[in-house]
Amino acid sequence: MQSQLPPFRIAAVDRALEPALRARIDGKTKPLGALGRLEALALQIGLIQGTAAPRLVNPHVLVCAGDHGAARAGVSAYPQDVTWQMVENFLAGGAAINVLSRQAGMRLVVADAGVNHDFGHLPGLVAAKVAPGTASYLEGAAMSASQCALAITRGAALARELAAQGCKLLAFGEMGIGNTAAASLITHCLTGLALRDCTGRGTGLDDAGLARKQDLLATAVAIWEQPSRDPLAVLARFGGFEIAMLAGAMLAAAEARMVLLIDGFIVTSALLTAAALYPDIRDYCVFAHCSSEAGHRRQLEYLNAKPLLDLELRLGEGTGAALAYPLLTAACAFLEEMASFESAGVAQRA
Amino acid sequence: MQSQLPPFRIAAVDRALEPALRARIDGKTKPLGALGRLEALALQIGLIQGTAAPRLVNPHVLVCAGDHGAARAGVSAYPQDVTWQMVENFLAGGAAINVLSRQAGMRLVVADAGVNHDFGHLPGLVAAKVAPGTASYLEGAAMSASQCALAITRGAALARELAAQGCKLLAFGEMGIGNTAAASLITHCLTGLALRDCTGRGTGLDDAGLARKQDLLATAVAIWEQPSRDPLAVLARFGGFEIAMLAGAMLAAAEARMVLLIDGFIVTSALLTAAALYPDIRDYCVFAHCSSEAGHRRQLEYLNAKPLLDLELRLGEGTGAALAYPLLTAACAFLEEMASFESAGVAQRA
Repeated sequence: MQSQLPPFRIAAVDRALEPALRARIDGKTKPLGALGRLEALALQIGLIQGTAAPRLVNPHVLVCAGDHGAARAGVSAYPQDVTWQMVENFLAGGAAINVLSRQAGMRLVVADAGVNHDFGHLPGLVAAKVAPGTASYLEGAAMSASQCALAITRGAALARELAAQGCKLLAFGEMGIGNTAAASLITHCLTGLALRDCTGRGTGLDDAGLARKQDLLATAVAIWEQPSRDPLAVLARFGGFEIAMLAGAMLAAAEARMVLLIDGFIVTSALLTAAALYPDIRDYCVFAHCSSEAGHRRQLEYLNAKPLLDLELRLGEGTGAALAYPLLTAACAFLEEMASFESAGVAQRA
Repeated sequence: MQSQLPPFRIAAVDRALEPALRARIDGKTKPLGALGRLEALALQIGLIQGTAAPRLVNPHVLVCAGDHGAARAGVSAYPQDVTWQMVENFLAGGAAINVLSRQAGMRLVVADAGVNHDFGHLPGLVAAKVAPGTASYLEGAAMSASQCALAITRGAALARELAAQGCKLLAFGEMGIGNTAAASLITHCLTGLALRDCTGRGTGLDDAGLARKQDLLATAVAIWEQPSRDPLAVLARFGGFEIAMLAGAMLAAAEARMVLLIDGFIVTSALLTAAALYPDIRDYCVFAHCSSEAGHRRQLEYLNAKPLLDLELRLGEGTGAALAYPLLTAACAFLEEMASFESAGVAQRA
């Protein structure tokens, strides 16, 4: 299937600058290593940007929205209409990600990847609809191979447009009733983790709802005639258009040497897909938080990723990424603005 | 000893407003509870301020600095001169807390509680020196009861001054070569935790240095003729002037119904003292982070406190508090700015 997809040029970061970055970090007026994970962040961002003075210019949150055919079978606590209603809420500025991205000083871009609703002309919405929702994976493939490639390509185009505007950090968020279910299936197929361990309560299923979701997802896996671990095959079978679009945006963002700020469970399922195609994308990723959606911690372990925050969030939209973003600016700021032992005339350790 | 100290009027927060705050939080366009610990923060700050629309006006970081007689015995990896050199670095704007408080939009106040150095007239420094460093607890009490009361009173006066300026949130930081050792002793005496479990590497002792520190602290405890769990007696025996001043500032800040943003191991030892005197102070405290200094996690467990961040910091100065502060503003912002299901026309769960 990969042949339908144009190639991305994603190289591992060049570590040649590491000694210079470490020397700059270690020369600051603080005990060695005392800024802990902030120091590791400064190093990573410096390596991504290829400079000892990295700056997170023009940061954005990209929220992709899409509907899921399987939502009609009852994999979520909320009705499918909430997807388009929340998109309108994003555009009106009233959702959590509006508030948190504004607080963080990040610009928000909202894209319709495949919402089951005719928005007409909605100012501010990026119209990138592949189709009005996916088909149900309980009956067949959620999308065709060409739809999948189209969603990826459109996501990549969006990220390239932001890169052309000088954006150096892209955070990812999503909206789509039913999309934790899709993320569970993708995670199960790409990591080999047990499906039950990848399946959680989403927006708040009760025990009976969770049991029903688990049964439905087990059925979805069982009826797939040609199971595969090929990332594009998995994505087309179970994915949402928003997940495919996010994967494409991630690939193009890494190609453009942006910092990729990864949010929760669904966004991480998009990254699992992107990383299965281009493993070097991992170097560009900062993991914002560990959500309380069962399975997210397991995804992070699989990726050998250490999240910055653990605040029991389970909202999506990129909210965890927006909350973590100030830590990244703090990492760049200490590197740029702190005095060195030499410049401040402070004695080093005995 | 408590008689030397003027009383503080610290009451537990009034929980009458809790149902109204919860209703406001639950009405926002997000699944119930989906903002996790941000929701708990919004509730706590609302209860502290007694309003469903809390605001963190005029936030400050108060950094108190002091020297320790025991530092000359070698309980730290750094020479004592680093204390005054870092105070000058704070005033020049080059330390980590300068950068991080600026990033967070917090004002920094630096107080000389008892540094062993004559700063002359240093613009911006709050001159509140009780004495040029404490005596060594390896030879007797670190300070007299009246010195201890004076440091607490001066700290309280500082917090009251900030309250008069409309400050609604006070974060606490410290600087003082040798002060993790003092904090270990205070923590051991006030919590009953084993001294070894409260003793860590501070700014970066190696194994031999840590063993030496452990021996010295065991000696310090052993030679105390009249061991006590009275918080003021413990503070006077082992404390630093900066720790006593912080305890006083915390008490007055809670009295003024500020939010108290607690930083690392040494600041938490000041809080242990304040909380032993006035347990209701606990309601006003937000715990910024868990540092990698051994003993901090145990202090937090003792206080039944859940820190917001865990970033392997071990710098002090209030840096963890400044890094956590954006999460508190985010909590107030979502409460104030997010749309409700009703106002946004979004369907609630089925």
